Amino acid sequence: MVNKPVVRVGIIGAGNVASALVGLLSDPERHEALLDAATGPIELVGVAVRDAAKRRKGIPKHLLTTDVAGLVNNDDLDILVELAGGIKPARVYIETALRHGVSVVTANKALIAECGTELAQLAHQNGADLFYEAAVGGGIPILRALRTSLAGERINRVMGIVNGTTNFILSKMTSEGSDYATALKEAQALGYAEADPSADVEGYDAAAKVQILSSLAFGTELVGDAIARQGIVGIRSVDIEIARRSGYVIKLLGVAERIGDSGISRRVHPAMIPVDHPLASVHGAMNAVFVEGVRSGPLMWLGQGAGGEATATAVLGDLLDVARNRFSGRHDIPFSVDRTLHSVAAGELESVFYISIDVLDRPGVLAAVAGIFGENGVSIQSMEQSGFGNEARLSFLTHLALTERVDATIKDLAKHKSVDSIGACLRVIDGGRS
Amino acid sequence: MVNKPVVRVGIIGAGNVASALVGLLSDPERHEALLDAATGPIELVGVAVRDAAKRRKGIPKHLLTTDVAGLVNNDDLDILVELAGGIKPARVYIETALRHGVSVVTANKALIAECGTELAQLAHQNGADLFYEAAVGGGIPILRALRTSLAGERINRVMGIVNGTTNFILSKMTSEGSDYATALKEAQALGYAEADPSADVEGYDAAAKVQILSSLAFGTELVGDAIARQGIVGIRSVDIEIARRSGYVIKLLGVAERIGDSGISRRVHPAMIPVDHPLASVHGAMNAVFVEGVRSGPLMWLGQGAGGEATATAVLGDLLDVARNRFSGRHDIPFSVDRTLHSVAAGELESVFYISIDVLDRPGVLAAVAGIFGENGVSIQSMEQSGFGNEARLSFLTHLALTERVDATIKDLAKHKSVDSIGACLRVIDGGRS
Repeated sequence: MVNKPVVRVGIIGAGNVASALVGLLSDPERHEALLDAATGPIELVGVAVRDAAKRRKGIPKHLLTTDVAGLVNNDDLDILVELAGGIKPARVYIETALRHGVSVVTANKALIAECGTELAQLAHQNGADLFYEAAVGGGIPILRALRTSLAGERINRVMGIVNGTTNFILSKMTSEGSDYATALKEAQALGYAEADPSADVEGYDAAAKVQILSSLAFGTELVGDAIARQGIVGIRSVDIEIARRSGYVIKLLGVAERIGDSGISRRVHPAMIPVDHPLASVHGAMNAVFVEGVRSGPLMWLGQGAGGEATATAVLGDLLDVARNRFSGRHDIPFSVDRTLHSVAAGELESVFYISIDVLDRPGVLAAVAGIFGENGVSIQSMEQSGFGNEARLSFLTHLALTERVDATIKDLAKHKSVDSIGACLRVIDGGRS
Repeated sequence: MVNKPVVRVGIIGAGNVASALVGLLSDPERHEALLDAATGPIELVGVAVRDAAKRRKGIPKHLLTTDVAGLVNNDDLDILVELAGGIKPARVYIETALRHGVSVVTANKALIAECGTELAQLAHQNGADLFYEAAVGGGIPILRALRTSLAGERINRVMGIVNGTTNFILSKMTSEGSDYATALKEAQALGYAEADPSADVEGYDAAAKVQILSSLAFGTELVGDAIARQGIVGIRSVDIEIARRSGYVIKLLGVAERIGDSGISRRVHPAMIPVDHPLASVHGAMNAVFVEGVRSGPLMWLGQGAGGEATATAVLGDLLDVARNRFSGRHDIPFSVDRTLHSVAAGELESVFYISIDVLDRPGVLAAVAGIFGENGVSIQSMEQSGFGNEARLSFLTHLALTERVDATIKDLAKHKSVDSIGACLRVIDGGRS
């Protein structure tokens, strides 16, 4: 690889992020600053789209091409920016580019979660870089920090609000007392949530991000192992109100943490967070990642988790990093995978839980319910009862309890004749455990 | 510069940060991870101290040397880590090392604030790196993010809680209702504040950090231009209580922001921040830096602003970055200074202000005081009066007002016969302006 007089960039995709990126690269006011930051000139050679006749906001027409294969196989290309998303055919394009020694920048979280480690190895074998800062936390530069600034640190836990849609919904429920359905509708009307919101509200999107954060923080591969996942669908405004009165807010968290010497727990679930915890002040569609290092102590990154322009700044940061590497004829070496690590099932973890259930308001019900907790070895810290009609809502806070025992308790409760419905079952973040 | 088989590191200083760094570098459990992150072996060749006979926690005796000159002039050295602090003789050591092509990592904020741009140029001329992540925000990796991830972004404002001592004092005053003197004593007893606390409480330490943040965010040199500075000494518990009731917390902020096309305002002052602003949840000795980019939107970094181990992780991050560069035979190119920028005096800026004054409780006083605001062209948004004995405390919130007019108002108020004393005069952060 020789030092290059100019770095040539091709983009696949022409959506919001691509448009914003083209805007950033061609802004005459930023020309000098980019030249400076890249340590040389960047040339945009083409933007591959399905339909070249369609007008694309901010992308000059002469750059548009439907010949993706031509762009990817171009031997003069230095950097491929993949912004089309999806697994197929994105994976093929990226692999082809890397095999040509072309560095790749992508925002494709699904693909990186699925095969990031293999692609990083392929990049390295071909003397190329593979960066994907925009895949987690939109414009927040958390991945580069894990790769560089914290490279020498032993990280114990990464805990993030990494899905803006669910954070918007929970924030609305908290600030306005809306119920879930109303808040979801508002998120859909504002374009924060899809017509089918399941990828967000069921935690699939957050799980892909946990996969990526975990691989950078711990060197986990563990691609085949499922990430335990609980969404926000069951959360009711009353749970949020009880949490508020107890000094907590409810957030959907993605968590990756060390358990003992070689265990890693990776999971997505709603949790009650103390109001004075830095993650509690992450409102609306904002994202944040909280990292606990052995020496560094707690660190947090906060920013916009989505949006074309914010995401494009993350892509640009990667692009400039690759360009600097290209101009000095080198590439970053990916971190080793730690193959001694194994997944710890969520059931094996301890946490304090908040559990709310609706029961028929009859004599002896509380004793029966409390008995079910006791039989499962789950100890109760406090209980609150509120009545309505011939029903009562019981809200329990447990002591530290094994998750599988709490799960068993919930199952037994659901079967009991006096229990009308199970409301929320939420982990309580406090004193460093979740 | 040829690719090296091993990178040799010398350290000046053997205090907390140096001890923690030596511990990190020699931890057998982290050996593989460091090798991986540095892309090659790091060898610690010596730790220069004044008194080699004194025992140093965690530093093997054979590494200690009193021959600083020998360490710095050693042609086999690759990286000098300067942790002694102070301007002299640190500057001479660093310049000598850089002239030998030795890269430098330092935590010396005073020195970097004074001559960081010159030293960066000297490093570049000699093919060396100069990194100083630990100089701002202790273990928070904010400087690398400004240098790399945000290199292509246009930043409008950087606003930070960058002094842990004052944040500890203000947090104590907020959470426990302590007065300033009591909170300061507690900070001193816990080792957070010096016997002479003026560098912290008068804002000098924060000003040095603003200087550094500004140079990386905007390319300002402007070393000769004073940074406007107001400390926390005048803040009383009643101000904090009034702020709290109005939905604000009081924090000491370091601010660097663009004003118009080529103006930069750099200043340190206490400010009232809305409780739901991410900076409001930065408690105790924690630090945070809030960055507003044109495209990225708001971003925040939070972490421990001090402490040997946290600071050592920042130094290690730099060290690994230099090592990676050394192993691939390159160095980072420092950003250009933007010589078109000029300082905007604090007096020329607009803000909403909170002003509290104690007056003799006589008829006509309020009219007289309100008249002084009016004569100076400062418009009042709201006023609160509370009486005690034959005195009354008046707390004003102004509309957006020019700082120099508010300063003139304060001067006139102080001269008025019915005004007993001026309490706080604080900027209110809201709607994006401070």
